[in-house]
Formats: sequence, C-alpha cells, structure tokens
Amino acid sequence: MSQLLRVHNFVVSSDGYGAGEGQSLESPFGHADPGQLMSWAFGTASWPNRTEPGGSLGLEDHLVREFHRNVGAEIMGRNKFGPQRGPWVDHEWVGWWGDEPPFHTPVFVMTHHLRPSFSLSDTTFHFVDDEPAAVLQQARTAAHGKDVRLGGGAATVRAFLDADLVDTLHVAVAPVELGRGSRLWTSPDELYDRYEVDVVPRPDGFTHYLFWR
Amino acid sequence: MSQLLRVHNFVVSSDGYGAGEGQSLESPFGHADPGQLMSWAFGTASWPNRTEPGGSLGLEDHLVREFHRNVGAEIMGRNKFGPQRGPWVDHEWVGWWGDEPPFHTPVFVMTHHLRPSFSLSDTTFHFVDDEPAAVLQQARTAAHGKDVRLGGGAATVRAFLDADLVDTLHVAVAPVELGRGSRLWTSPDELYDRYEVDVVPRPDGFTHYLFWR
Repeated sequence: MSQLLRVHNFVVSSDGYGAGEGQSLESPFGHADPGQLMSWAFGTASWPNRTEPGGSLGLEDHLVREFHRNVGAEIMGRNKFGPQRGPWVDHEWVGWWGDEPPFHTPVFVMTHHLRPSFSLSDTTFHFVDDEPAAVLQQARTAAHGKDVRLGGGAATVRAFLDADLVDTLHVAVAPVELGRGSRLWTSPDELYDRYEVDVVPRPDGFTHYLFWR
Repeated sequence: MSQLLRVHNFVVSSDGYGAGEGQSLESPFGHADPGQLMSWAFGTASWPNRTEPGGSLGLEDHLVREFHRNVGAEIMGRNKFGPQRGPWVDHEWVGWWGDEPPFHTPVFVMTHHLRPSFSLSDTTFHFVDDEPAAVLQQARTAAHGKDVRLGGGAATVRAFLDADLVDTLHVAVAPVELGRGSRLWTSPDELYDRYEVDVVPRPDGFTHYLFWR
C-alpha cells in the first residue's frame, strides 16, 4: 500500500469521546478540558506549541513525532476547523491556529457549506462536500505520493472507519470520563476484528492504542 | 543542542552484555544468539532486513524507525566492523553487510590499525585512531548538521558514556542472560543520575530504556 490514511495523536476519553458537548469559540472541546486530554503530549520535545527548548525524548515524543512524518495532506471535519454551524455568515474565520497552522500541507475540510480555498503560510485549506472515499481521493492526489492524515474530530474519524478507509490509527485513551459529546467508539475492542493492535499503558494513566492492518 | 550523539536499537542481555564471548566470522555476537537479541525488531515493518512486505506498525516499529531519522554519520568500534584483531593482513574485509550496508552515510570505524577509506553504495567507511571526543568532532563535520549515531559495540558505547558525550540512548534489554562478553553496564540505573529515563516494559519480555538529557 503506497499511500496510507493515518490517524495520529487522536485523544478520546475512557468512555470514547473525542470532544465534549457544547463546542464554542471559547471552548473548542465543549465541556471537555483539552489541557487534560492532551496532557500526555505537552511535555515532549516535539510538541508543536512548546515555547521553551528541551522537553521529554521518551516514548510519548516518538508518538508525537509521527504526526508529521511522510504526511502530504490532511482531512478534517468542519467542527475541527471551527465552531460555526450552518451557512457561513462571512469568510473571516480561518481556523483556530493563527497565521502559522501546524499542517504545512493542503487541508481538506469536509462541510456541506462550501467556501473558497485560502492559504495561511504553507497550509492551504480546501472545502469539500463529498463522501469520505471521494474526499480521500482528492487528498491523495494533493499529497503527491505521501500519506494522508485524518485529523478528526471523532465523527469524521468514525465516518472513515465506517467506510473502511483508515489504514493506521494512533489513539490515546485519557484517564477521564466525559459522559457525552462527540464519540469515536464505545470501546477500542470494536476495531479488534479489523485491525492488528498494540496496547501500550503508560505511567501517566493514558493508554496508547496503535492499530494497523 | 543542534547535533546529537545518539544510540539506537542497541540490545543488551538482562545482565548488560551487548555481545557474547568469542566473536568470529561465523559468530559475530560470540556465544550470544543475535536472533534472540534482535527478536523484538524482526517483525516490524521498518526492519531493514525484511524480505516480505507487511510487518508490525506497533510501538517497536516506532523505535526501529528512529534508527535513520536525521542521522548524518555513524561511529562504530572495530569489533562491530569485523572479527579481525590486530594489524590488517589485507583489506579484503569490507564489513558484514554486503554491497549495500544499512548506513547510507559516512561511518567512522575506531581502530588502532588504520587502513584506507572505501565506499560501498552510499556508505563510506573511514578508519580513525583517536579519542572519542576527536572522533565525534570528525563525525559531526561529516554529518553536515545532522545527528551522529553511535552504533556500538558495548565497549565503544561505554567509552563515549565515560567521556560523557552521549546525548540520547535507546537500549533494549533482552529477557536472556549472557554471563560474559562485551558489557555495557551492570544495570541501567547506573545512568539514572546523568539522564532522564523512560522505562517501557513490553509483552515480548524486552524492556526498552529511552535515555535523554
């Protein structure tokens, strides 16, 4: 298989939610605390939002580092791109990430409400209203032979899993329950019949699941 | 720190030996069984000697893959290069690796018995009779800004540790005792005062130690 569709550094709660309920501009993860969900990665040397040099070079750093390796395009759902719902009122919103988005590739945002493509630094956002398989085909072409990363959220990853299009997944299960929100799964063992899996429990209470096929 | 000196995929027995006693052409690891020592890596997709496609994409594959990332030169001891001792009888021996050595960079072989440099495919072997710090300086220059990998054997890694020149180490401790041979350490905790460490026990009985500072 030459071009994989990969999920990396995707965090869910112990009950399988990738984000809480009630996403808004102020709360991109709804009632979930993103600091708690992403705490496994904050201390690593490769964490892109580090403000100081240094950081851990342990196992978590190996996992964080995979995020960019050989990735030529990203696919994300509209709720990862922004908190708006329905038709765009204007095109001022350009994502959560400021002038230097951490993608550095074409990004395909899945939405029923199209708008023109635009670029920020070396990231270009395209808006597509299509089925997962068709979006993946566009992303593969844009990736010029490299892999495609599936960025989330949970509903988007779920849609590609249901279409059996995902080749590898790294999911970190956080030691916290959310109870409601956007759900990836009831339990990781839902994927055991379709994927090989490596389960890596860690001292910080997170468990990393590496799936491949 | 811009150019790290890194140890990767270095295996020792539970009692700290990197190779057994009695290295020879037929037994590069002496009385140790290299198949047993390296078994943790054989099943991974990134294992360089794979003859079939596929392989695991779990945690071990992440570790194996680090071997080449951003490496611009390698340093090794003469006993990693070959089984001969003392002056070279001739220069026919060009290493264990055939026409395509897995290094793809300049390699600095530490020996008191110099011989001319030579190239095989995209690997060039240089022979140097110098102290660790001086050899590292040469390797850093040859690496053109990339990191330098310290390839072993145990005595060579030990020499660079004693000179406090090693920045990161990945050591896999195998579930096997060797009793004698070339020793890296009595116990990994000898390094705990100088390094941060992440200890990762695995279902196959190996424990991976990731050291950094």
